[in-house]
Amino acid sequence: MSSYDPRTGAALEAPPESTLDEVDDTVAAAVAAAQEVAAAAPGERAGWLEAIADSLQDRKDELAEAADEEVALGLPRLIEECGRAADTIRFYASVVREGGWLGAAIDSGPPDLRRVNVPLGPVAVFGAGNFPFGFGVLGHDTATALAAGCPVVAKAHPAHPRLSAALAELAWSALDETGAPAGSLGLIGGFAAGSRLVGHPGIRAVAFTGSQRGGLALWRQAAERDDVIPVFAEMGTVNTAVVTPAAAGNFDENGFVASFTLGMGQFCTKPGLLLAPAQAGIPERVAAALGANAPRGWLLTEQIAVAYQQGVKNLEETGARVLTRTAEAEGGWKAQPTVLAVTTAGLRSDPTLLEEVFGPVALVAEYGSREELDEVLEILPGSLATAVHAAEDDPDLPGLVERLSRTSGRVVVNGWPTGVAVGWAQQHGGPWPATTSPAHTSVGAAALQRFLRPVTYQNAPDAALPPPLRAANPWRIPRRVDGNREQ
Amino acid sequence: MSSYDPRTGAALEAPPESTLDEVDDTVAAAVAAAQEVAAAAPGERAGWLEAIADSLQDRKDELAEAADEEVALGLPRLIEECGRAADTIRFYASVVREGGWLGAAIDSGPPDLRRVNVPLGPVAVFGAGNFPFGFGVLGHDTATALAAGCPVVAKAHPAHPRLSAALAELAWSALDETGAPAGSLGLIGGFAAGSRLVGHPGIRAVAFTGSQRGGLALWRQAAERDDVIPVFAEMGTVNTAVVTPAAAGNFDENGFVASFTLGMGQFCTKPGLLLAPAQAGIPERVAAALGANAPRGWLLTEQIAVAYQQGVKNLEETGARVLTRTAEAEGGWKAQPTVLAVTTAGLRSDPTLLEEVFGPVALVAEYGSREELDEVLEILPGSLATAVHAAEDDPDLPGLVERLSRTSGRVVVNGWPTGVAVGWAQQHGGPWPATTSPAHTSVGAAALQRFLRPVTYQNAPDAALPPPLRAANPWRIPRRVDGNREQ
Repeated sequence: MSSYDPRTGAALEAPPESTLDEVDDTVAAAVAAAQEVAAAAPGERAGWLEAIADSLQDRKDELAEAADEEVALGLPRLIEECGRAADTIRFYASVVREGGWLGAAIDSGPPDLRRVNVPLGPVAVFGAGNFPFGFGVLGHDTATALAAGCPVVAKAHPAHPRLSAALAELAWSALDETGAPAGSLGLIGGFAAGSRLVGHPGIRAVAFTGSQRGGLALWRQAAERDDVIPVFAEMGTVNTAVVTPAAAGNFDENGFVASFTLGMGQFCTKPGLLLAPAQAGIPERVAAALGANAPRGWLLTEQIAVAYQQGVKNLEETGARVLTRTAEAEGGWKAQPTVLAVTTAGLRSDPTLLEEVFGPVALVAEYGSREELDEVLEILPGSLATAVHAAEDDPDLPGLVERLSRTSGRVVVNGWPTGVAVGWAQQHGGPWPATTSPAHTSVGAAALQRFLRPVTYQNAPDAALPPPLRAANPWRIPRRVDGNREQ
Repeated sequence: MSSYDPRTGAALEAPPESTLDEVDDTVAAAVAAAQEVAAAAPGERAGWLEAIADSLQDRKDELAEAADEEVALGLPRLIEECGRAADTIRFYASVVREGGWLGAAIDSGPPDLRRVNVPLGPVAVFGAGNFPFGFGVLGHDTATALAAGCPVVAKAHPAHPRLSAALAELAWSALDETGAPAGSLGLIGGFAAGSRLVGHPGIRAVAFTGSQRGGLALWRQAAERDDVIPVFAEMGTVNTAVVTPAAAGNFDENGFVASFTLGMGQFCTKPGLLLAPAQAGIPERVAAALGANAPRGWLLTEQIAVAYQQGVKNLEETGARVLTRTAEAEGGWKAQPTVLAVTTAGLRSDPTLLEEVFGPVALVAEYGSREELDEVLEILPGSLATAVHAAEDDPDLPGLVERLSRTSGRVVVNGWPTGVAVGWAQQHGGPWPATTSPAHTSVGAAALQRFLRPVTYQNAPDAALPPPLRAANPWRIPRRVDGNREQ
């Protein structure tokens, strides 16, 4: 593999790409481990996760430094992200222990029916470049797949292959020390290796976080297999934020700029389009705020830097007008934060304006009436998140929240979609094309559900049942018995 | 459309096929109804379903007669099926009222996050020929889509277009009387109309029950859309039953014959392959039982009758040996119940032996050792259901149940997979290629989940939240608050 310092473009020493034989061996180890991982009691699996979390926490300064060499997102952000990744993994460990994810149900019949979610088997994880910890080798996808009882084969991200290797090493020690079977986690690297992985009969599901192009390519490949497997791809979209007329006066333009330039605009939940009431001067206020507060930084990879420049150029060519373009950093994969104005007519006539440009750029469009706003909302493609900025008791708010919920997985009121809290009530997947499987999420307790399928046992004696369905309920999990929830 | 009496092949008068304009109008009505259906409180929606169930119950004799003209499954079976369909719809009404399907969760934060499942919108339902009530216009798919808050556009099945029209009329009256919006349920007919339906931008999900060929064609079509929608196809497979050595002596060959010839073998859960220990004379016992108890009946359509004859011929050509072939009925879409013997080596060398032949046919293979059995189990494709026949405290049982759970959605012990109870713990979907979405089911309380996706509201004031997430919990549904379940 190749690795580069985004600040200079200098090549760094990186691990070699995996050969196809190495991919096969890694998957074979995952397949060999699958039954043992699946059979491990919740407490045991939670222990594996907690050991990984402890190691991440203990070594976050050193890991953040390693990450920063490859992604240039800065130490404070990366130290925080690594700490949050550890907290997140601990949260998933608590979810595993709780056991509700097993969906255990018993109908005493006749016939006696007992239903439980079982793990799918080895999961291929394609993490993202922009969150080397949160969505990297030990991010949400890996943690929730292991939590659900599935071995993982992760692909090292080309933006941080050195860190990927370090994270895998860390996890191997933690897993080994807590008794997880060898093969619970594998790591491969390289484009051809990734393709081999998705086509491998031993792989039972794919989790992906990244671009539309990458996610849909994997989804198509999986759909061509003899035995089709699910691909849970969460992909970048233009996340729209709406300002109501009543909120225009107090609108926080600095908050918007901070959100769309956070991490150099490299968030899948970046608010890429602001719809603001006309005659409130919001485009000008945003332009001034960007001029005053734009970050100077670098993008993750040369490819992303080139695509960013081209993407902004395309926006200009389709009629968007640059309001402010700020100075860039020096060297490497630098980029100029930019905000552009578009008209609602322009948005409606050219759908390319509604395609994500990954990086520190956003569009602002003014609407003259609620009808004009609704016409734009009508054409919005599915997105991960949307936002509304409203005043107290704003009469427009309930209708807008409902309208935005139709095209997004999360609706934020008086806030920005960047910043995704991890908990029981989170949803980080939106309608197509934001996610290939909009019923699922890659963040939050429900993320485990991606890697499970239900099995019902009919009239099976206790000894032939998996532990969560046995009469004695040895795992002490919540179950639904004859329709009633029992703890 | 065309309709035929399977007993004679005589054409019956049938409703015309829908024009493409009629399809568009029907979907437009569903789209127009979607918000009102989604917003209806659980009790209201349950009331719609119960009114449909009451009408089915009241009119089951007359409906069964209408059905029998087109499907020739006999009045007793059809009266029972219609009554069961009414019970099933009442069960789904009780599931709607319970409210757990909403998956409501609240994290008090900050940020305040509130997650709930929302309906996807209009659902296209392609029912099955073999269950004109259970999987017809008012079957599981329609009932659970309405239960989940989605309008339905059903396609009349070519095996029972007259009954489909009668069922839609019945439902329209019931829905109208209980205040459901016009457009809650639409009916279209014809192949071209069905294709238009799946491609229509207003349709947000497809439910299908039937053949591999039909289901995969719809799945592919949906995957080619600009906005891809989920297709929940439950398709016929070879459902395997295993007899352990300890159970061979008491093996109930009459039960097997009754199961694989039930409804002239036209069950998606038909046990199509029996794996029996060698030297217990089981093939001969099955052959004798079929000779004594084979039904004389008709298949649903001419197409199915032709495919059945060809399918059995193909089995013979790939090396299966006919053990018994019994006399057929006279006239129409008649078929000869047949049981064939295959070797485990044959099964392993020719995968076409593991493809479903729809109709009253089954294969019996003898295994000489556990290793030989395991080699066959290793190559079984995914199926809806499997079965094991075991003795009391059978040492082989736990391992076989676990092994079969890897390739099927339901494992039946000492019974047969035909006969699918409706309840909280049922699972009627199996690994690919039995189901396009093995995490889902078309039967049982969980069937509603197919037509929902989660949305999270972040920091939204009470007035902007949907009822299930409001502070006062006006729908009185179970919710998870800060990780703890509350009723």
